[in-house]
Amino acid sequence: MAAFNAPLRDMRFVLHEVFQAPDLWARLPALADTVDADTADAILEEAAKVTGQLLAPLNRSGDEEGARFDNGQVSTPTGFGTAYATYIEGGWVGLAGNPVYGGLGMPKMLAVQFEEMLYAANSSFSLYSALTAGACLAIDAHASEELKQTYLPRLYSGEWAGTMCLTEAQAGSDLGLLRTRAEPQGDGSYAISGSKIFITGGEQDLTANIVHLVLARLPDAPAGSRGISLFLVPKFLVNADGSLGARNPVNCGSIEHKMGIKASATCVMNFDGATGYLVGEPNRGLAAMFTMMNYERLSIGIQGIGCAEASYQSAVEYARERLQGRAPGGPLAAEKSADPIIAHPDVRRMLLTMKALTEGGRAFATWVGQQLDLAKFSDNIDERNNADALIALLTPVAKAFFTDTGLESCIHGQQVFGGHGYIREWGQEQLVRDVRIAQIYEGTNGIQALDLLGRKVLGNERASLRLFAAEIRAFVDSPAGVAQPFASELLAALERLESVSAWLAGEAARDPAQVGAAAVDYLHLFGYVAYAFMWARMAAVATERRASDETFYAAKLATAQFYFRKLLPRIHSLEAGIRAGSEPLYGLTTEQF
Amino acid sequence: MAAFNAPLRDMRFVLHEVFQAPDLWARLPALADTVDADTADAILEEAAKVTGQLLAPLNRSGDEEGARFDNGQVSTPTGFGTAYATYIEGGWVGLAGNPVYGGLGMPKMLAVQFEEMLYAANSSFSLYSALTAGACLAIDAHASEELKQTYLPRLYSGEWAGTMCLTEAQAGSDLGLLRTRAEPQGDGSYAISGSKIFITGGEQDLTANIVHLVLARLPDAPAGSRGISLFLVPKFLVNADGSLGARNPVNCGSIEHKMGIKASATCVMNFDGATGYLVGEPNRGLAAMFTMMNYERLSIGIQGIGCAEASYQSAVEYARERLQGRAPGGPLAAEKSADPIIAHPDVRRMLLTMKALTEGGRAFATWVGQQLDLAKFSDNIDERNNADALIALLTPVAKAFFTDTGLESCIHGQQVFGGHGYIREWGQEQLVRDVRIAQIYEGTNGIQALDLLGRKVLGNERASLRLFAAEIRAFVDSPAGVAQPFASELLAALERLESVSAWLAGEAARDPAQVGAAAVDYLHLFGYVAYAFMWARMAAVATERRASDETFYAAKLATAQFYFRKLLPRIHSLEAGIRAGSEPLYGLTTEQF
Repeated sequence: MAAFNAPLRDMRFVLHEVFQAPDLWARLPALADTVDADTADAILEEAAKVTGQLLAPLNRSGDEEGARFDNGQVSTPTGFGTAYATYIEGGWVGLAGNPVYGGLGMPKMLAVQFEEMLYAANSSFSLYSALTAGACLAIDAHASEELKQTYLPRLYSGEWAGTMCLTEAQAGSDLGLLRTRAEPQGDGSYAISGSKIFITGGEQDLTANIVHLVLARLPDAPAGSRGISLFLVPKFLVNADGSLGARNPVNCGSIEHKMGIKASATCVMNFDGATGYLVGEPNRGLAAMFTMMNYERLSIGIQGIGCAEASYQSAVEYARERLQGRAPGGPLAAEKSADPIIAHPDVRRMLLTMKALTEGGRAFATWVGQQLDLAKFSDNIDERNNADALIALLTPVAKAFFTDTGLESCIHGQQVFGGHGYIREWGQEQLVRDVRIAQIYEGTNGIQALDLLGRKVLGNERASLRLFAAEIRAFVDSPAGVAQPFASELLAALERLESVSAWLAGEAARDPAQVGAAAVDYLHLFGYVAYAFMWARMAAVATERRASDETFYAAKLATAQFYFRKLLPRIHSLEAGIRAGSEPLYGLTTEQF
Repeated sequence: MAAFNAPLRDMRFVLHEVFQAPDLWARLPALADTVDADTADAILEEAAKVTGQLLAPLNRSGDEEGARFDNGQVSTPTGFGTAYATYIEGGWVGLAGNPVYGGLGMPKMLAVQFEEMLYAANSSFSLYSALTAGACLAIDAHASEELKQTYLPRLYSGEWAGTMCLTEAQAGSDLGLLRTRAEPQGDGSYAISGSKIFITGGEQDLTANIVHLVLARLPDAPAGSRGISLFLVPKFLVNADGSLGARNPVNCGSIEHKMGIKASATCVMNFDGATGYLVGEPNRGLAAMFTMMNYERLSIGIQGIGCAEASYQSAVEYARERLQGRAPGGPLAAEKSADPIIAHPDVRRMLLTMKALTEGGRAFATWVGQQLDLAKFSDNIDERNNADALIALLTPVAKAFFTDTGLESCIHGQQVFGGHGYIREWGQEQLVRDVRIAQIYEGTNGIQALDLLGRKVLGNERASLRLFAAEIRAFVDSPAGVAQPFASELLAALERLESVSAWLAGEAARDPAQVGAAAVDYLHLFGYVAYAFMWARMAAVATERRASDETFYAAKLATAQFYFRKLLPRIHSLEAGIRAGSEPLYGLTTEQF
């Protein structure tokens, strides 16, 4: 199994050269004194060490051993406890957290690259802290000052961990069906009762306390999704002096046996009158939870990129070393029994597909991170509003497109290994199993697609889509955009997206099933256009700087070329599928399936 | 986990109605007294019982327990031994075997449907006998009369099992690199020495003897693939009276730990001067082995269809029962908390994609089976030659397209289950893991694509492709073809295939990398056209017979509609990818990846 080495050169390229993050940070007051190019590079280098040397070596063994459940207790695999202790010493959990409560206040643009390294090195391990960072965000945005002071510092430090308790057996994609109850206890707290499933890190042996964010219904709550409130429910109650108090009656009933992320405990959590504290307003819990969910959705999207990067690194190494057959034009290594398989066009096709999708995704994730930083730190309200609109539009694309293309990439990476790709010790098959969950959890990719097309595109009469298009056109008209070679392909693809969006707006008014019928193809079409934008931006920088580092920038341009010639044409079939409409989906009754 | 019920109605539809197999059988002398419609139906019904009641119940437990290795011995999971004994009592291993040596002589058209049931019920179990059937074919075609009489009856009966020993650590896709040696022993036999890997069923506890077909080099053999001979190497030597004699020095060194098909033992086999017998002519072993490999390639292709069918059945059942959200047009089950998810267009999209690909594949497999029967049993040499050419052309498509679309289908089936799709007890994730190997073994799908485009299409100046096109045009011009509604889409797709084939013929002469660059996209393009042909043929029957069974035939027409509107347009992107040529694959040096 290949070692994981964080792609630092490419991360710096995206961060510093494509998005010129240090210039942005310098002009945002909250970031100007916190981070600059050197700080960012130092953090990424340290992150590369932590992920490559501390976490990656536990990935295979964690998969083999898995999380174990015994009588309510969950044990993480050998080495996870020690690694977690070292990990939190570095302050990584609070990297982008609020400095008022102990976070490091780093920009999201930087954090997304760290997250990619985490998932690439060890998806299971990473989930234990990924949920904590998301929980902190929801607490910081919606909880009382007292709750923030009590919980945030020890969550940011990693001493305690956070979870997200939404799903119930009868309520998955449809949270309006959830039944967990919250009864006022007279002292301002609530007694929470109900059972939650699929709770990542619901129980574990890494942290002294676990802070559950739980969706539940107040006694007088309206039915459906408008009657859901958010509660903070700690495993151990916290005394006034901050010490741990009584054990709250919230218990792990069992853990799931899964296809992958086996070292991450996926728990059934039973709340038996557990004490909880309201976060945000009554019956507005879903909105408050979405603060966390949007954050998690981007993060889970990045799992797709991280796993793909890990698979790519192994596949390239294998393809350079494995000797089979001869190159199409005749022997390249005539002195050897055969040529390395990287000489074969179909192996190159698989590797370049992985490379183009992964690097496109990395740039896209950083772009979303940039918008999150603008929305949070800009002192210009128009800039903040613009960023908020783009975040809402791009988040479902990031979650679903990163993970759908992440699975595709990991499958290519496995295929490059031939038979060895199917054998556990080589590591490639684990990446396929681990990345597969990212298409399902945090809202299935089908749900993301409905959110994108139904709410984010059609829901505001394509206003956000126009913002996205304006960003692309502004780039194409800029000096850098003019200098790069892919403007016409990029604009043509954008016009396909706009045209099909306009068509769908008309269709949806006529036939409510059109949105769901088109949604997944539409999200993919959107994703390919967005990646085309990213590749044109990367190509612009590479065109300008080529002379300074021919090896790196020429590869970037060649990968862009591959993307535009070989991958972007996928939009033709997607558009045809969308325009076929909903009718072909309703030719069968339920019984005829 | 849902029970597996063989899709008997659809199998009869394909066999009797679409391909009118009984009419064909009646006119082929070797089959006329062997099988008719009633016999075929009785066999399929019995096969449905065996696979559904005997084998399917062992699928999950077999995956959990796995095959075990201990000091050279391999144990199959609990229940496999008993089930195997019952299974072979039914004569299933020799279903299509040569009656002279104890086979049942049934047509391949029937056997492919049985194979689909086997893989759907239990892929791991099925592999133990699938290799036996293939080994029999090679022995029957190439071995001496003495070897046939000694080995075939007990292989057909299932008392002994067969294997296929090709791969070595340094020789996978490139068999020319293999090193296993065969030294003449002076008595007409050979001493075989070397190590083989990835040997399915190389050792097991189901049969009294194991008959290995082994590729090895004679002392004076030329280098490369022209110096490979085929040998039969039994685990136990066989005495003149047919009893088992001395243990041959061929031993299992270890078994692999794999992503899936965990109950199938994948063995390292060490030959230490084991006695073997030449099969066929010296140095012509690869050609002889291809008799078996082509058979296995179709069979392994059918694994893709079988796993997809099993996944589909479970997904439909789940989608009918799981209540989440409301249908786009308003509540369907207003009295319940939510509608069944089969009401949602995106769930229908996934299910219909599975259904259209699986039923298209079933028809295609039966069509290839028909050609195999014509090649074997027809007394008309033109008909045999025509069939042989189609078999050569269609086999790589069957292997790769069935399994690529099989993985896609199983991933959809898993996605329909949401979070439960990722949990082992529900069975869907096992199908994804089990079907994944079928894209890799028996020649990776990349190798199949090279075989199709390089050898089968361009290698004979598109003569076989013209045969394929002539079959389609003859159908479209027939009364049934005229009556069905998809002629123009089918012909347009065929013309795209012909056009891009002609373009590739010109390109390949100029640039040897073009074949490999286009191969996988080309195979998929071919597959979608072939499925369009199958769907048009099925639509023709359904159009004619609709009044006799509205439920069944209207569903068939609606699924055809879905295929033509929503899936066939995938050819547009494939064609664009092909026409982008090989240049975008060679923009990077090996170091620049």
